[in-house]
Amino acid sequence: MDANEESWGQWLEGASRRKRWLVGVSGGADSVALLHMLVEAGFSKLVVCHLDHGLRGRASTADAKFTGRLAEELGLEFDTRRVEVKKLAKENGESMETAARRARHGFFGECAEKWRCVRVILAHHADDQAETVLWNLLRGSHGLRGMKPIQRMGGLELHRPLLEWRRRELRERLTIKRLKWRDDTTNLEPVAVRNRLRNEAIPLLDEISGRDVAAGLLRLAGDWKGQTAITDWALEKADVIDPQGRMHLGAMRKLPVALQRAALARFLTGHGVTGVDREVLEHGKHLIEAHVPAVINLPGGRRLRRRAGRIFVEANEEDAG
Amino acid sequence: MDANEESWGQWLEGASRRKRWLVGVSGGADSVALLHMLVEAGFSKLVVCHLDHGLRGRASTADAKFTGRLAEELGLEFDTRRVEVKKLAKENGESMETAARRARHGFFGECAEKWRCVRVILAHHADDQAETVLWNLLRGSHGLRGMKPIQRMGGLELHRPLLEWRRRELRERLTIKRLKWRDDTTNLEPVAVRNRLRNEAIPLLDEISGRDVAAGLLRLAGDWKGQTAITDWALEKADVIDPQGRMHLGAMRKLPVALQRAALARFLTGHGVTGVDREVLEHGKHLIEAHVPAVINLPGGRRLRRRAGRIFVEANEEDAG
Repeated sequence: MDANEESWGQWLEGASRRKRWLVGVSGGADSVALLHMLVEAGFSKLVVCHLDHGLRGRASTADAKFTGRLAEELGLEFDTRRVEVKKLAKENGESMETAARRARHGFFGECAEKWRCVRVILAHHADDQAETVLWNLLRGSHGLRGMKPIQRMGGLELHRPLLEWRRRELRERLTIKRLKWRDDTTNLEPVAVRNRLRNEAIPLLDEISGRDVAAGLLRLAGDWKGQTAITDWALEKADVIDPQGRMHLGAMRKLPVALQRAALARFLTGHGVTGVDREVLEHGKHLIEAHVPAVINLPGGRRLRRRAGRIFVEANEEDAG
Repeated sequence: MDANEESWGQWLEGASRRKRWLVGVSGGADSVALLHMLVEAGFSKLVVCHLDHGLRGRASTADAKFTGRLAEELGLEFDTRRVEVKKLAKENGESMETAARRARHGFFGECAEKWRCVRVILAHHADDQAETVLWNLLRGSHGLRGMKPIQRMGGLELHRPLLEWRRRELRERLTIKRLKWRDDTTNLEPVAVRNRLRNEAIPLLDEISGRDVAAGLLRLAGDWKGQTAITDWALEKADVIDPQGRMHLGAMRKLPVALQRAALARFLTGHGVTGVDREVLEHGKHLIEAHVPAVINLPGGRRLRRRAGRIFVEANEEDAG
């Protein structure tokens, strides 16, 4: 069995068909394919959720109509809302991507409340995943991390059962079954950056390398995930936390620098410190190496202190007083 | 001190100025900057090695003349050879990149013999490194590996002391010191793929992301190197090799899958098995999971066998007979 069928089968095993599920459907090929696959698999209490981003003028309205009719034909509930992403972006001084993402989350949040259902199924597929990996890679700050198959976010539970399917495979499925979809809807949704990665960057890299770059990115993201699992295992073995929950310097100093860094990052995140970046870890390294200073400032006002062979997070004075 | 000055200083500490060194100089900004930096640092027994790739017609000859004159002005030895990379590529049915690389290695090999010196200094810098990382990433098979600062290869010892310097920094250095170089020489050296990454892909990715993509790639390559160090540490802790040098299945099964894979890859490579790829490791996984079969074929005709709770590499029958 192919990886796509296999992962879809695994997701189906864990997903109750009798329960209600929200499904994000733009009317484009990917989400229409997803919707038909769900119906074929026996899901009957689906709520088709369509957000009109207000970016395509009349075509937007037609997308909403198409999706509503499709839901009706399949005997499913339908919910829709129109937002003006451009206007929102301008008002809040944020990028179109950010505005669109916030609008989608807001919409799904409202649907969740209205339909008393926190489970949302999304049609993100392997090519979307490759674009996400490339985008994280270009930003240089999140490793090669991609989207998770199941993700909890702000009270919602997002499911992405198509992450192993290539865009091409989904379209082929629709064509074979003579199912209809609206072209270009998804393309215009998340706006500029993602579209340019999809339509310009990846085709150029494919052409230069003579390879399927998306497949390479996905393999690398898989390797990266494996590396993360190895780091988790190594941190457990390293056993640098003492019974009082402080980091033991003697144990830390026996580790390779990269593992010290990972241990420190995990330790700080575990203490609720946000904004742990390369700079913070670089400063933390000085504490481990036992030179001056004995204390460094952390993002958010707290401090990391070295004392008596241990490192621990200290509240700031305002907190203490 | 900046990372570039620091790494250059570290390299200088380990490099004897009294010894003879070969330096690859194309006449372009990067290698001309390198040459002047070496002379300023007190290296006096340098041999300036210039390979004319025969790709730029009359300009090629001018590059060679320029480089020869520069060596003379600096009181250094000069060695040059002309090859016809296009012709070589055609004759051997290989890409221009491969032909150019082979020609360079051949040239440095001859220089090493003639000058009785295996140490070669090359001008690869941080932007070259980012291109290499991107190229390995696109091929999807070598992780995010970049060039090594010191690399042993076919009897040569290649040194790359400028890997932390950005192209821009090297040019600024030349401009400030009013030193001359030949434009476009390096650009035409390694031919198509690398040039397209440099001139098309990276500028496009910079523009789309609004970031310095090369810097992001270098940070990621650094993270990847750190992950490799963590894997090395974890493999030592995992201790899966028994006193007879076979893999202990019980110990293997306690590890996360990614670490099993890394252990198996290391084990096979250590036994001189070449061509250990994802497919081989995937087959090896079945052996570890203790289902049928009890033996799998390895690239090169040998076999990996499971017996009595151990896994070991077996010679093929021809070897045994």
